Amino acid sequence: MFRFKVIKKSKEGEARIGEFNTPHGMVKTPVFMPVGTQATVKGLTPEELKGIGTEIILANTYHLYLRPGHQVIERIGGLHKFMHWDGPILTDSGGYQVFSLNALREISEEGVTFKSHIDGSIHLITPESVIHIQESLGADIITCLDECTPYPATYEYTQRSLELTINWAKRSKATKTNNHQALFGIIQGGMYRDLRERSAKEMVEVDPDGYAIGGLSVGETKLLTWEMIEYTIPHLLPDRPRYIMGIGTPEDIVECVYRGVDMFDCVLPTRNARNGMLFTNSGKIVIRNSAYRLDEDPIDKDCDCYTCRNYSRAYLRHLFMAGEILASRLNTLHNLYHFICLMNDIRQAIFEDRFLQFRRDFYHKRCNT
Amino acid sequence: MFRFKVIKKSKEGEARIGEFNTPHGMVKTPVFMPVGTQATVKGLTPEELKGIGTEIILANTYHLYLRPGHQVIERIGGLHKFMHWDGPILTDSGGYQVFSLNALREISEEGVTFKSHIDGSIHLITPESVIHIQESLGADIITCLDECTPYPATYEYTQRSLELTINWAKRSKATKTNNHQALFGIIQGGMYRDLRERSAKEMVEVDPDGYAIGGLSVGETKLLTWEMIEYTIPHLLPDRPRYIMGIGTPEDIVECVYRGVDMFDCVLPTRNARNGMLFTNSGKIVIRNSAYRLDEDPIDKDCDCYTCRNYSRAYLRHLFMAGEILASRLNTLHNLYHFICLMNDIRQAIFEDRFLQFRRDFYHKRCNT
Repeated sequence: MFRFKVIKKSKEGEARIGEFNTPHGMVKTPVFMPVGTQATVKGLTPEELKGIGTEIILANTYHLYLRPGHQVIERIGGLHKFMHWDGPILTDSGGYQVFSLNALREISEEGVTFKSHIDGSIHLITPESVIHIQESLGADIITCLDECTPYPATYEYTQRSLELTINWAKRSKATKTNNHQALFGIIQGGMYRDLRERSAKEMVEVDPDGYAIGGLSVGETKLLTWEMIEYTIPHLLPDRPRYIMGIGTPEDIVECVYRGVDMFDCVLPTRNARNGMLFTNSGKIVIRNSAYRLDEDPIDKDCDCYTCRNYSRAYLRHLFMAGEILASRLNTLHNLYHFICLMNDIRQAIFEDRFLQFRRDFYHKRCNT
Repeated sequence: MFRFKVIKKSKEGEARIGEFNTPHGMVKTPVFMPVGTQATVKGLTPEELKGIGTEIILANTYHLYLRPGHQVIERIGGLHKFMHWDGPILTDSGGYQVFSLNALREISEEGVTFKSHIDGSIHLITPESVIHIQESLGADIITCLDECTPYPATYEYTQRSLELTINWAKRSKATKTNNHQALFGIIQGGMYRDLRERSAKEMVEVDPDGYAIGGLSVGETKLLTWEMIEYTIPHLLPDRPRYIMGIGTPEDIVECVYRGVDMFDCVLPTRNARNGMLFTNSGKIVIRNSAYRLDEDPIDKDCDCYTCRNYSRAYLRHLFMAGEILASRLNTLHNLYHFICLMNDIRQAIFEDRFLQFRRDFYHKRCNT
């Protein structure tokens, strides 16, 4: 059975460290989950992910349902075996992808009808079918179907949308049969304080194993994002992990941890890596910049990842300009390691009761360069 | 100083095993050199190449001269340091690329003028400049500029072309100053027996450290390729390695070894890997084939590479269909390992005086499936 334990709560703000168990191992929070959309974290092997300290990855139900199909993965022995990753996996519900990748979609009480972005075929997914799909995949943490409320949206639309999401969460919970899988419910409520509060309270009634906070970072300002998190968190049970979906930058992570978030996923480190945008402790660098043509230094002198230990910026720039696969690999490894080190540093700071100082230093370093 | 030693010559045919030393380590022959066109064997790290038993790689002077520029690589400490490969490297002269990648080119006694395939800029390379470029790069084995005679070509054209190549080889040798680098001369002569023989004999006079056989596998039948090799080899000094450029398939390799070739390079295993064409001991498979959709087996049950130990054909098919980077990586690792194991098996067979039996078994296995 899934169990989350708070190990220490920061005296300042809502930051906390904790851990949860899964059938594939323990996870220490706050945690960043690299995104393995199509049953692979783009460019890396599971051994490399382990090597940089990855404890849990995310995979996308929507993508795997369409290709190769969850039945294929089930037949091969489940997602872990299929992709040769024996650590914990969280699968999202596909709600976000249905709403962001598909022009044609029809929402009803029953579920969502959408057109595949791959071959144009029409599919209906329901709160029940999404649980069945995720049971086939066999992730350690699965998620209820939700409607990712668009931004901007009227109060009335947002209210109806959150009611739908709560109803779907109840039906998801009633459908779930596998006790080895934890179920997370998704909180919506758009940019309305009372709807965020209501969504949080009603999700507590649904009683999932953890809370996902959805519908944020969809175009609103960062200040509004933080506000919505602040309205949500106090109404959640403190003994369940809080996972903010699809966020974010290192700054976002620090701010969300400060506000009590435990789990993160984002394509930023992996996607930016493939585009040549690299994270360092003193800010971002764009490796194609001609300033790096003859630069013998590593991406980040303070970094001890495989890439920084062995390759110059000049070489990485060359690989990027030449469109080489190795560019994506080396950059991805570095960026993910940067995020994972950030989480380690955050946990250590909370453990040592100096999270606010850590946060000040974090901004100081990045603004000084 | 470069030194090649024949360790054993097969009683049947011209097959032989040997070894040569370089400033970056020994190489056992017959050897297959993975191609690292742009200072990276596409998709793999140097550690992975070492891990599958790679002893020497090839890099392309033409590509590196144009991008990032040999001066950049020299400034970063040479090609080995630049790409983080501390084993032996052979650089070709760029002759083949100038003739195959460029529509606009002008050949004169002085050298070749060509238009960059990257940015359209005009460049003149000469036998002298190509040596200087390769001295900047710092490979262990460098190559003389040659004209890769087109196919078909008239006797007169081929004769003039080979005279040019021989003259260029003399000038290359006179230019070379670095005694740590071995110099290979390239034998041409098109598809004419007497011109191949003449080219071989005159190259012996030039006295390079090794012989590259060029201008083959350019459109002619395999039988004609083998014939040209048979006309060439007997006229070469037996104490120098013989390297056939850009060849070939596993079958090509077996046939060339039988005829006395010691060194091979080819983009086949790496390029085919990226296109989903995988080598096995019982023939080739095309991983996108729908027959592999639910196939739990590895690519090759007899293979113990990382890919075959950990991933099913179903997963590799999924990665390929989804256009994932990991597909290229895992496929490349497997295909190169297949080639390197083939070379190990060939050496072992020659060592044990059973190369002809090995050759028969090799065809038998591949034809039986």
